[in-house]
Amino acid sequence: MSDLRRDPVVGRWVIIAPERGKRPSDFSEEVRPRKKGGFCPFCPGNEDKTPPEIMAYREPGSMPNHPGWRVRVVPNKFPVLQIEGELSKAGEGIYDRMNGIGAHEVIIETPHHDVALPDLPIEGIGEVISAMKSRIIDLKNDIRLKYMLVFKNWGEAAGASLEHSHSQLIATPVIPKRILEELGGSRQYYEYRDRCVFCDIIRQEKETGKRMASENDMFIAFLPFASRFPFEVWIMPKFHSHAFEEIEDDKIISLSWILKDVLSRLSLALMDPPYNLVIHSAPVGIQCSDYYHWHIEIMPKLTKIAGFEWGTGFYINPTPPEEAALYLKEIEVRI
Amino acid sequence: MSDLRRDPVVGRWVIIAPERGKRPSDFSEEVRPRKKGGFCPFCPGNEDKTPPEIMAYREPGSMPNHPGWRVRVVPNKFPVLQIEGELSKAGEGIYDRMNGIGAHEVIIETPHHDVALPDLPIEGIGEVISAMKSRIIDLKNDIRLKYMLVFKNWGEAAGASLEHSHSQLIATPVIPKRILEELGGSRQYYEYRDRCVFCDIIRQEKETGKRMASENDMFIAFLPFASRFPFEVWIMPKFHSHAFEEIEDDKIISLSWILKDVLSRLSLALMDPPYNLVIHSAPVGIQCSDYYHWHIEIMPKLTKIAGFEWGTGFYINPTPPEEAALYLKEIEVRI
Repeated sequence: MSDLRRDPVVGRWVIIAPERGKRPSDFSEEVRPRKKGGFCPFCPGNEDKTPPEIMAYREPGSMPNHPGWRVRVVPNKFPVLQIEGELSKAGEGIYDRMNGIGAHEVIIETPHHDVALPDLPIEGIGEVISAMKSRIIDLKNDIRLKYMLVFKNWGEAAGASLEHSHSQLIATPVIPKRILEELGGSRQYYEYRDRCVFCDIIRQEKETGKRMASENDMFIAFLPFASRFPFEVWIMPKFHSHAFEEIEDDKIISLSWILKDVLSRLSLALMDPPYNLVIHSAPVGIQCSDYYHWHIEIMPKLTKIAGFEWGTGFYINPTPPEEAALYLKEIEVRI
Repeated sequence: MSDLRRDPVVGRWVIIAPERGKRPSDFSEEVRPRKKGGFCPFCPGNEDKTPPEIMAYREPGSMPNHPGWRVRVVPNKFPVLQIEGELSKAGEGIYDRMNGIGAHEVIIETPHHDVALPDLPIEGIGEVISAMKSRIIDLKNDIRLKYMLVFKNWGEAAGASLEHSHSQLIATPVIPKRILEELGGSRQYYEYRDRCVFCDIIRQEKETGKRMASENDMFIAFLPFASRFPFEVWIMPKFHSHAFEEIEDDKIISLSWILKDVLSRLSLALMDPPYNLVIHSAPVGIQCSDYYHWHIEIMPKLTKIAGFEWGTGFYINPTPPEEAALYLKEIEVRI
């Protein structure tokens, strides 16, 4: 089982996950490019190569763990955190640790090996979003779990180890530092101004327009003022809502549309770049519906994180978001 | 000039540096591997291809900006921040920005293109450390500068854009968030226990020994309990000191020895891995000599940072530091 360890100075948590199978000798040569066209455990017909499915959207009459699914959710075969066992916390001198209780699931977004998320029809993307929502709602019943993170790594440079399009859900037994920072910052803003900082960001981005990438009835997509990465794009609901999993079905279609639009623009502008997509949503059991506002952050991986970033927490971005926005808006997308 | 921008929610600073020359169209293909064996502006004879040198350790009788140097410090030709101009801060609606005042220097560690830092003699590494110390002391005279970060990127995967061995110094007009976190955490520990948390870490690491990588009279090297990355190694002075630049000359030789030892072990164990090295030291003008303790963090780049890390600030490390420590200690190094 994994081991959660806390840095005694800055409070950063690390998951030591030896089950993920990197022995020291595995690193003695540079990471080799993953071979293309090999066996894929996510393709239809190979359902027995993953742990049994947790849920799936299927064609009528098809059987669990057999072909006929459109979206399929399975436990990660090499989980970073696992659901079995009791949460136990312990000190070790000045250090703090706990065992790796949590959940780690994979959302296989399509049965088609070569189809990327933005190439799915809007209804297909909608089913992926519905599956995410439904898994979060289910896991919230487990009181040991404090946070559910849904994310997607696309492309090897962004950390994807399988090329078949998929997202992941990791549930953690502590609220992550990054989320506490967001909650802290947005609460402070709210206490001072009695307004949601994210709603204010939306207002200002719509007003100036110079960083906008896309918009529909329910959502906007823009390049954040303090973009860490070239072509970083955030998608935000225009209605105030703290929790992604509270999204209603009619709004899921609007979200699917803007996700398809933004990911298509990025793909066309940057020739299918590697990217990380992260859903930022409220943690379980913290009353933050006034001041927190869920959103999606999409970070293309075009530059390298180096010593300066590690040492300072500053980011160096060579492409002003205003310039990238102009570029993205010019792309012609057919949806 | 660069633009420093602050995220209105989490307070993270980003440097938008369009001078670094990435137009949107530069990303439209995957980053190509840098060509080997091309022209090198850091090699002797090419001194006129860098801005004029700020300082150098030279053979007697050799001329500035000509061959004959052993270590040479020059301004970065494509600076992230620059020293000329006046610091100006401004709001833009809910956003904060300031102009990119600071300093960005390059420490060319050796005249030999193919020699890595650990392959230099101990005295050579000592001169690199002396140059870093001397540049920090000089830049501290500029009251606009709040923090000096010295770091090294080795290998393309770690963000090095030139292969000739070099380190960098970036001075920033604000204290970086990452440093504020370290100061906050160590002050809190000190206030509660009246002891330096780093001194306590050193005590515990020496006592258990299971994460130790190297040690001499003045310094220890160990793999931190909550290592973010496989084979991450920290070097700490065994004597309490908050500021790297206060290191005395006799201690520089001990530091050179342990740096050579640790980097040689990593290079042999992992076949010359890409890595980032960062000197963590006290900021200018903050009274923290009781509770802060400077140190060096070395992070081999063997795994990818992906969506989970970006979304949570958690790190997933597949190699327990105790296991990596055993492996590093077995390496035979001749110094």
